[in-house]
Amino acid sequence: MPGEFELIASHFARLTPPRGDVALGVGDDAALLVPAPGQELVVTVDTLIEGVHFFADCPPAALGHKALAVNLSDLAAMGAEPAWALLALTLPRADEGWLADFARGFSDLACRHGVALVGGDTCRGPLVVSVTALGQAPTGQALRRAGAKPGDGVYVSGELGAAGLAVRARRSQITLPAALAQHAAQRLDWPQPRLALGLALRGLASAAIDVSDGLLADLGHVCAAGGVGARLDLAALPLPEGALALASHEELLGAGDDYELCFTVPASNEARVPELAQRLGLALTRIGRIEAEPGLRLVDTAGEEHAVAAKGHDHFR
Amino acid sequence: MPGEFELIASHFARLTPPRGDVALGVGDDAALLVPAPGQELVVTVDTLIEGVHFFADCPPAALGHKALAVNLSDLAAMGAEPAWALLALTLPRADEGWLADFARGFSDLACRHGVALVGGDTCRGPLVVSVTALGQAPTGQALRRAGAKPGDGVYVSGELGAAGLAVRARRSQITLPAALAQHAAQRLDWPQPRLALGLALRGLASAAIDVSDGLLADLGHVCAAGGVGARLDLAALPLPEGALALASHEELLGAGDDYELCFTVPASNEARVPELAQRLGLALTRIGRIEAEPGLRLVDTAGEEHAVAAKGHDHFR
Repeated sequence: MPGEFELIASHFARLTPPRGDVALGVGDDAALLVPAPGQELVVTVDTLIEGVHFFADCPPAALGHKALAVNLSDLAAMGAEPAWALLALTLPRADEGWLADFARGFSDLACRHGVALVGGDTCRGPLVVSVTALGQAPTGQALRRAGAKPGDGVYVSGELGAAGLAVRARRSQITLPAALAQHAAQRLDWPQPRLALGLALRGLASAAIDVSDGLLADLGHVCAAGGVGARLDLAALPLPEGALALASHEELLGAGDDYELCFTVPASNEARVPELAQRLGLALTRIGRIEAEPGLRLVDTAGEEHAVAAKGHDHFR
Repeated sequence: MPGEFELIASHFARLTPPRGDVALGVGDDAALLVPAPGQELVVTVDTLIEGVHFFADCPPAALGHKALAVNLSDLAAMGAEPAWALLALTLPRADEGWLADFARGFSDLACRHGVALVGGDTCRGPLVVSVTALGQAPTGQALRRAGAKPGDGVYVSGELGAAGLAVRARRSQITLPAALAQHAAQRLDWPQPRLALGLALRGLASAAIDVSDGLLADLGHVCAAGGVGARLDLAALPLPEGALALASHEELLGAGDDYELCFTVPASNEARVPELAQRLGLALTRIGRIEAEPGLRLVDTAGEEHAVAAKGHDHFR
């Protein structure tokens, strides 16, 4: 008797990797999982909604990828090893082709990171994708937002701002040169969760967060959690080439969807960062330093300091 | 900087009970939880959508209650002890009064069962409520759908069919007498997850499921999982008084939203059931028996047997 749940089961569960720590997967009232001894469970949920988090023409494979990626990005920010996921999917109709593409995007990423889909719920409704991701980290070793201390270096992985440019381009607010347009679309639709970086930052970083709401908002969270402030060097920011001709610093840093990690490193550990960047093949850029005084201060290329309110993408504003 | 997530945090997290096994709750990229040794993790997700799972005029407190209750009902069916929950809530606008009522309904039930809200995601969109519930059960002791054997008694807790009557009444398909209308509405809007029963069924029942899609569909799942069939005695069904004057047996057993447990008990354990019912103050009615031959057979009050297709509420049909 294939029904609502069997729909998801057939498309998804077979496509994600088997794990020895799944005692019972999709197909019962709940999944049974075997937590590893000595580990804390790391759990997060994030929802993507058509018209809010993605455009109606987003390819279903990209949507499947992104729905899992944004959650794995949260696990990365905690320094967790991902393990299991659950998917709550509402969609206007049971379109086999759409579902197959969505499932492929989801499962390709799940396979790459060894994540088993262990449960879900599918029903008819507006297109809303909610994923719960579960991971593990050795007790006491997970990264947190709190912990940054004055003097710590502020770092960001990869590059910032391209996904925000893609959003503005799709809204016809700006026109991007062809090469940048392709790069920005890739960044928006196919974010790569920085899981290997998160694991490597255990014991190295003093605080971490994923840049999902824009750097200014997310670094603001780190500062608030630690009771500190930060000074950022605008000239150091890893922005795409040509970006500043298309948007201001504040626009680029206020946009969401970067899914990089922003983290702070005590000065005594900073010498280890370049070697880590090399090992991961991932840019890790120091963009500023933590200060005791609360608030964010941007230092422009002329050396002028600007205090900024930490504001980011807020779906209720 | 209160934003989308702070909205949920302020309304909900404070209202659910503190737990010693929450190392880090709402407010970071993910929660950190401490699984109990020797236990399996029991995880489920269920979504409620306006117009599909509840009516637009559903009181927000009832919706908050029900969104958690349907997930706790799944944990109950596994014989799990509930521990933690995450809430993904999309709603058309950030209405403080609505949210306060919703939070009260959610947190009253969470407090009753010791469930801590440890994470969530709130954003603007169509009204969709998705809850992930996590619980624990001693390794190897969780109940499953599979396991029913020929000769086992088939039992159901509480009462069946009233919620389905309420749905039909709200759609103006039938008119209910005043007393039944109130009872049926209570059953539809404020389902009580049978958690104490689920715990007591460990080591007693051979299989269990929660009755969320209608008895025929859910017992069909139990039979399919066990490779068996069942014979049901219609005269034994615990239906509300007067229900059969308003709907047929198949309508009453095909409707969803009962949130009782259906379970099978080996004959050698059946003598323990009446004592359990008394201890819990909950009717536990034997409604039939498992047979080797697949399929469901209903025996009517005249002793006539009717084979039925196991069909239930399916949100894609």
